[in-house]
Amino acid sequence: MSDSLCDIGFIGAGVMGKNLILNLADNGYRVCAFDLDHHKLDALLEQDARERGDQPARVETCNSYTELLSRVKAPHLVILSVPAGAPVDDVCNKLLDAGLKADDIVVDTGNSLWTDSVTRCKRYEGKLIFFTTAVSGGEVGARFGASLMPSGDPYAWARIEPIWHAIAAKVDPKSGQPIERFEPGNPVTEGEPCAAYIGPIGSGHFVKMVHNGIEYADMQMICEAYDVMRSALEMTPAEIAEVFREWNEGKLNSYLIDISAEVLATVDAETQQPLVDIILDRAGQKGTGLWTAVSSLEVGCPAPSIAEAVFARSLSTRKVLRGRAAKKLHGPDIGPVPEAERAEAIQQLHDALYCAKICVYAQGFDLMKLAAREQGWQLNFAEIARIWRAGCIIRAVFLQSISDAYERDIKLSNLLLDDFFIEQIASNQGNWRRAVADASLRGIPVPALSSALSYYDAFRRESLPANLLQAQRDFFGAHTFSRVDRPENEKYHVQWSEKGRPMVKV
Amino acid sequence: MSDSLCDIGFIGAGVMGKNLILNLADNGYRVCAFDLDHHKLDALLEQDARERGDQPARVETCNSYTELLSRVKAPHLVILSVPAGAPVDDVCNKLLDAGLKADDIVVDTGNSLWTDSVTRCKRYEGKLIFFTTAVSGGEVGARFGASLMPSGDPYAWARIEPIWHAIAAKVDPKSGQPIERFEPGNPVTEGEPCAAYIGPIGSGHFVKMVHNGIEYADMQMICEAYDVMRSALEMTPAEIAEVFREWNEGKLNSYLIDISAEVLATVDAETQQPLVDIILDRAGQKGTGLWTAVSSLEVGCPAPSIAEAVFARSLSTRKVLRGRAAKKLHGPDIGPVPEAERAEAIQQLHDALYCAKICVYAQGFDLMKLAAREQGWQLNFAEIARIWRAGCIIRAVFLQSISDAYERDIKLSNLLLDDFFIEQIASNQGNWRRAVADASLRGIPVPALSSALSYYDAFRRESLPANLLQAQRDFFGAHTFSRVDRPENEKYHVQWSEKGRPMVKV
Repeated sequence: MSDSLCDIGFIGAGVMGKNLILNLADNGYRVCAFDLDHHKLDALLEQDARERGDQPARVETCNSYTELLSRVKAPHLVILSVPAGAPVDDVCNKLLDAGLKADDIVVDTGNSLWTDSVTRCKRYEGKLIFFTTAVSGGEVGARFGASLMPSGDPYAWARIEPIWHAIAAKVDPKSGQPIERFEPGNPVTEGEPCAAYIGPIGSGHFVKMVHNGIEYADMQMICEAYDVMRSALEMTPAEIAEVFREWNEGKLNSYLIDISAEVLATVDAETQQPLVDIILDRAGQKGTGLWTAVSSLEVGCPAPSIAEAVFARSLSTRKVLRGRAAKKLHGPDIGPVPEAERAEAIQQLHDALYCAKICVYAQGFDLMKLAAREQGWQLNFAEIARIWRAGCIIRAVFLQSISDAYERDIKLSNLLLDDFFIEQIASNQGNWRRAVADASLRGIPVPALSSALSYYDAFRRESLPANLLQAQRDFFGAHTFSRVDRPENEKYHVQWSEKGRPMVKV
Repeated sequence: MSDSLCDIGFIGAGVMGKNLILNLADNGYRVCAFDLDHHKLDALLEQDARERGDQPARVETCNSYTELLSRVKAPHLVILSVPAGAPVDDVCNKLLDAGLKADDIVVDTGNSLWTDSVTRCKRYEGKLIFFTTAVSGGEVGARFGASLMPSGDPYAWARIEPIWHAIAAKVDPKSGQPIERFEPGNPVTEGEPCAAYIGPIGSGHFVKMVHNGIEYADMQMICEAYDVMRSALEMTPAEIAEVFREWNEGKLNSYLIDISAEVLATVDAETQQPLVDIILDRAGQKGTGLWTAVSSLEVGCPAPSIAEAVFARSLSTRKVLRGRAAKKLHGPDIGPVPEAERAEAIQQLHDALYCAKICVYAQGFDLMKLAAREQGWQLNFAEIARIWRAGCIIRAVFLQSISDAYERDIKLSNLLLDDFFIEQIASNQGNWRRAVADASLRGIPVPALSSALSYYDAFRRESLPANLLQAQRDFFGAHTFSRVDRPENEKYHVQWSEKGRPMVKV
């Protein structure tokens, strides 16, 4: 243990916490860690010693909140990696009891609900500076470079910024690709860091929540493409892995396509079956996709493909029910796609996935835009797309195109209106439509791919049949409507039960 | 004014309140009404006098909460028809101040959020008996017979039941059709009343909320069918009205199809254009569809077609954005359906609407089932379907089939597993699939019809591609998975970055 004080206090040495601490140490920060579980602290010290070799240790541990504060420079910077919810408040209160001051900064890096962060910031006002940073990238990201979405007090950010830039994932500015180097003690120091100040408290976790909603839809659509290849094209997992590897060289290049190929190429050692075939088809979820779908409903933002992905996971958990339904419910009577048409069908799926992906991102960015308007946040969408290019789960070259779109037009109202994406969909939509139509006829569920198509087709319609809907509402509930040939704020009602159905201005 | 006391105190003489009061009076109940707005009370007395003719008036009004209580028999029965939210509590508190007792009953008939009713029931425990009744059927239902969904204290229900049975809509037990007689002073007294005790406090409004969610999807799907006929078949509103009239004679017979035909047959007197064409295509919503979608996400019940209907309304409100998109975004290059194929295309839409409708009701009833399990409610689904046969917006012969399904099997886990519906979809799905495929190829958005199809196709799949999804989650987040050949509670994780990718039991 050194005599000098540490730069950072860190509470919580679970998987994410431990890796963030080692990442900080790699980047030259001296960290004092505390966890209620001593074994975790021992494991941390052991791993640090092993990785650091004959270099001096940069990680220390301690036995109490009070000791933690005494070993860290004032004003203190304390980072939390504890479970979302009550534990965050518990730690904040313990830190206050231990003598935390009003100019000390506490950074919550857990998976908190964004509205909870807003509440907490108010609760601790004047007692401590409550700051948050949403972290995407799982264990590996935490250890070697994550995508970081910080929000809160801008003065706190000034102090945190260099630290976050150091531990963030980096992007090669020339290729737009992540710089991936997973070596302890040898952090990536060049490239553009995937960490940018998002805005006032709560906004960082909101943006991360939308990231996860997009992730749900991305994953679901890859599963749908896999399902069509497996069920209609009768391809093996190994063959589908090859297709995904090819796709990963082109426009669909992304972490999720990459790992899907890896998964499908993996064989279960015990049974010698494709690994995917011995995994139970019951999807778990931790809630962030659901939160995104609920937010989109509440804000009034159409994000149907994200909601479909959440519902698809729910339906997957009804395994027993589906087992019974499979025996009783009928599908169409149709054979597999002939081998000669396979290549064409694969290309259709590729283009469907690509176009639907554009729509899903359009929905996610639209949701951020509407929420930002409601909350009074100034979000920089080009920057948000940039920090998602590396470190996080949805990282993809594709995000560079989104960033470019918002650079071209900072006020872009929807991604679908960007010239690049307009052209991309225009030239690929035929295959998208054929893929959806074919799956519908064949009885293969493609809820996200088809929902994205309906979104696109409704979005580009000057007139939707909501005029009939408004008439229905006026008929049964006197809800009134506007006329196309009058100012919209003039409301009209038809007296449906009277002769000649006179219309009255309300 | 008579010397004897009134049966019922009634607070709120707006459109719904006034009509409920007149309905109660028609059925022989003496009502004392109070409203902060004297004009509303005057209008009520005037209409009652006009309708009652030389019969003695049965409606009285008063000037204060205290007077109201003094003019109504004790223990008091007070019905509220006030805006949802704070006004309900305001009135309850004023009634308590005026001397309401613990054995007095207050019935909230507004559009309250079901969880608010639960909170209120607790809040007023021991002070008054807080009971709720969700009312569906709009103004006309309130006046001549609504569908009533009461919930709360069963002892209170014993007192309310005969009153609710009297003012409820009635169904002809032979035909299963509503008995519709809209004559003041001549209420329908025969037939089966559309009022049944739903369960503990909150359950009635929950069930009504799901009714509204289904209503959203029903309306949206009718609009989609209309849109295809209008845009792809190039039919006029009058021609489509004829189609809807025909459909209304068959399996799709329902109030919503009926009024859609009426709307489409109506011409705007001023412009001589079809009425629907001069109505702005910007759908309003009052929130209950949104609440249903949010509940389905929170309960983990797949109800994608209801959510799609809510999102379709949101997207319709983005009129300016759509106007810009219409000029820039491309659709497929395809001509209208040839006249010779029109009849076939119409039949496809009919069958699509019918099959998708079954799926939407399956989603809605599934949501009630899951929520009931979570809340500990014992819902009688056969009864719920029965009280929706008349009075409410989704009334349809179709609901008799649903009621029959739950009569056949009280524990039916999902409507899609009922033999009648299995057969109905089996024999109509071909056209459903063709309708969705054709709309996808033609660029006409059918979000609800296609989402229902994906729901059906996923529901009947023993194995879904969620196995790949679980593998992805394990890859990037070590979320673990179950094996198909081991007990589900055993969790496994693949060490993806290690050689040979060993699997470990967690």
